[in-house]
Amino acid sequence: MVQGPRWKQAIETALAVDDKSVVTQLASIDPTTPIPHVRCLIFRGFITPSTNTELPLLLFTTDSRTPKTSQIISNPHVQLAWWIEGAKEQYRVTGLATIIPVPTNGLHKHFLHYTQAGKDNNGAMTMLRKEGFDWEVKRQEVYRGMSPYMKASWCRPIPGSPLVGGEEEAKKWPVKLEEPNADGEWSSEENKRLWETALSHFALVVIDPTDVDYVELGPLPNRRTRFWRNEKGSWSEEALVP
Amino acid sequence: MVQGPRWKQAIETALAVDDKSVVTQLASIDPTTPIPHVRCLIFRGFITPSTNTELPLLLFTTDSRTPKTSQIISNPHVQLAWWIEGAKEQYRVTGLATIIPVPTNGLHKHFLHYTQAGKDNNGAMTMLRKEGFDWEVKRQEVYRGMSPYMKASWCRPIPGSPLVGGEEEAKKWPVKLEEPNADGEWSSEENKRLWETALSHFALVVIDPTDVDYVELGPLPNRRTRFWRNEKGSWSEEALVP
Repeated sequence: MVQGPRWKQAIETALAVDDKSVVTQLASIDPTTPIPHVRCLIFRGFITPSTNTELPLLLFTTDSRTPKTSQIISNPHVQLAWWIEGAKEQYRVTGLATIIPVPTNGLHKHFLHYTQAGKDNNGAMTMLRKEGFDWEVKRQEVYRGMSPYMKASWCRPIPGSPLVGGEEEAKKWPVKLEEPNADGEWSSEENKRLWETALSHFALVVIDPTDVDYVELGPLPNRRTRFWRNEKGSWSEEALVP
Repeated sequence: MVQGPRWKQAIETALAVDDKSVVTQLASIDPTTPIPHVRCLIFRGFITPSTNTELPLLLFTTDSRTPKTSQIISNPHVQLAWWIEGAKEQYRVTGLATIIPVPTNGLHKHFLHYTQAGKDNNGAMTMLRKEGFDWEVKRQEVYRGMSPYMKASWCRPIPGSPLVGGEEEAKKWPVKLEEPNADGEWSSEENKRLWETALSHFALVVIDPTDVDYVELGPLPNRRTRFWRNEKGSWSEEALVP
């Protein structure tokens, strides 16, 4: 059944045409400098509270040791630019981002503070909490769905730090991680340690959208629509000049 | 002859593999809000001073009536994220942006102030000025190189403003602009007026890079290199953990 806001249906329709265009660009601000930050992030899907399907969250992943984590904790306002080539559509999503690391990470308290304090103005995060949504279960599920090569990337030294030892050192990093067997057992203690290391660095990035600017360059005349979340927890829209 | 900084050669090599990946994402800050801004911009090439080929500028275009113009004039610090799919490479370019509108536009004085005051620390903009580079000639040349459909896009009402009159009104916008003939004559006064309107809204966006973060996801182990412009007007580089 088709449901959710019209911009979400448009993204799903565009991705059905061009399922390769999952690379988005996330901009954030580091409050200590006047320089904006932007990097590529792969879209991993929507998470929608069952009590209000009008409020889907956008899901991404990261390494909790990257600078975007501290930037987002300092200032959760983000904007995403997303060009879906096969559909000739641009989406610009403005919203509030949350980082969800392993519960034993010191940064996890920021996530709890954000969601438990209802700072999202009774939005999707609060609804999911009331529905009993388990973010740690979700984090582990998303991690398991990653390729063995991606999993290995979270075992490296801190991303963006100087490469001590050079390429020779980098060649010692695991290339891909081995999965546990059906009984949850590993073929070696080392493989278990790598899996746990990667999982401890793996974090979810969740964006709760407040504004979506949707530009369609396929039709003539081109179309542009602004959607914004209103106080009733649904979406208003207005046609704009492209 | 191959010349210029290694990151520029890498971009050129990647685009030779995948010449469709010219869509980049430019992040900027609006000093009046804590929300970063990011949108897609098409890369239009490099402009390099002949007196120092180590200092290439990156060229883009825009409508001078868009919000990015005032954002960049208020705060020229920008960052660009660029994923070149066919090469599996991400470039993040940090730098200072300049908007170059038609000389009769009130905003043109900001461009003159920026370049003539040597605010770029004797960088590429100052070098080009000393070399007699004519930005208005360049602006018109880039405009002429745009497709007739793109040219028509600069005749619309202010981008991002409410669509007064709806789709019916939008259908009255020109779809493509007609070129003047070889003698510079138009087939009608209306076609001349449209051409001049579009040219008056058309602006160059030039980024003078200070830092480039280059990630190669093709080779194993993956590579990441940071380049930064040093005080001698050339580039230093350091290998980082991807």
